[in-house]
Amino acid sequence: MKIVIVGATGTIGKHVVKALEKDNEIIKVGSKSGDYQVDITSAESIKQLFEKIGKFDALISTTGDGHFGPLNEMTETEFRIGLNSKLMGQVNLVLIGQHYINPKGSFTITSGSLSHDPIKLGAAVSTVNGALNSFVIGASVELDNGVRINAVSPGVVEDSPAYFPYFPGNVPATMHQVAQAYVKSVLGAQTGQVFEVAG
Amino acid sequence: MKIVIVGATGTIGKHVVKALEKDNEIIKVGSKSGDYQVDITSAESIKQLFEKIGKFDALISTTGDGHFGPLNEMTETEFRIGLNSKLMGQVNLVLIGQHYINPKGSFTITSGSLSHDPIKLGAAVSTVNGALNSFVIGASVELDNGVRINAVSPGVVEDSPAYFPYFPGNVPATMHQVAQAYVKSVLGAQTGQVFEVAG
Repeated sequence: MKIVIVGATGTIGKHVVKALEKDNEIIKVGSKSGDYQVDITSAESIKQLFEKIGKFDALISTTGDGHFGPLNEMTETEFRIGLNSKLMGQVNLVLIGQHYINPKGSFTITSGSLSHDPIKLGAAVSTVNGALNSFVIGASVELDNGVRINAVSPGVVEDSPAYFPYFPGNVPATMHQVAQAYVKSVLGAQTGQVFEVAG
Repeated sequence: MKIVIVGATGTIGKHVVKALEKDNEIIKVGSKSGDYQVDITSAESIKQLFEKIGKFDALISTTGDGHFGPLNEMTETEFRIGLNSKLMGQVNLVLIGQHYINPKGSFTITSGSLSHDPIKLGAAVSTVNGALNSFVIGASVELDNGVRINAVSPGVVEDSPAYFPYFPGNVPATMHQVAQAYVKSVLGAQTGQVFEVAG
């Protein structure tokens, strides 16, 4: 299977690569590293990426920025960071990628536990994660040719200790648990699902 | 109680006005009608609105546009209609309004059932509705001075028969059921909740 992984060298992405590279052809995509580069905030950059890669069987996205900060100081400017990157970037990977994916392929994007399990400073990221979960639910009933779509929704993960203080009482998910959720989405049969991953 | 209703002359808003006007001071806001006008896609217009209205106890929003259309023809341009209007517009009513609302006040915004119960042509609106639900969850843990926030999430409603063909098998909610969900949010005690309304 030809699997495109956007964010392949990131905290989560590199473990997803490891979990899938033995039995599949992996195309690693990053903002600055990998086999190909893409700026996910640019639809034009995404289109050029798919033109270079050609047809593929699965796309996994483990990328996207969002803003953490106090609600009472937040303005549209900070709020739109996540809308433009983690949300619109991943949505554009699907909107544009649907015209390049092979029949019975799959999209797997990344949301996160803040959609339903909030923390202080996290309102903008909660919003983006909830948006992504509902996007896969909405898109799953329309994708053509048996193409599937799911989201993986991790809580805080063991390889991101810098985040631990902001997630009190959250048991970090192991990188194995997280990577396997992407494997489940790609090699499994489900669509329109949000796979929660907690420690 | 001084209650600001943005979208006061709309399909849902006018019923919310009726349900609350007997015992409260209602400030009706619309894009072109009402006591005050606002363009919710403009943060500057929203700021000017609150400067004119001054302090208030509750804000209800029943407004915002989104795009319905086939996923396989959708581009960022159509997708961003809902992000800029129904999502960012309502989020800005809260981000800016939090600096004008009285202690123990409440915000009530409007999402919709497509967040979790999708239909064809609805992926962009599903996304916006899921974003709004998670925004209230995220914002609820940070709002100062006991200010609350909830979302009302209606399915198709009886006063919008033009939508019925797109929602097969959905029993329309009555306008009374819908309006009472806003009453529950404003006069009740809950925060960070999504009140689903189905027929």
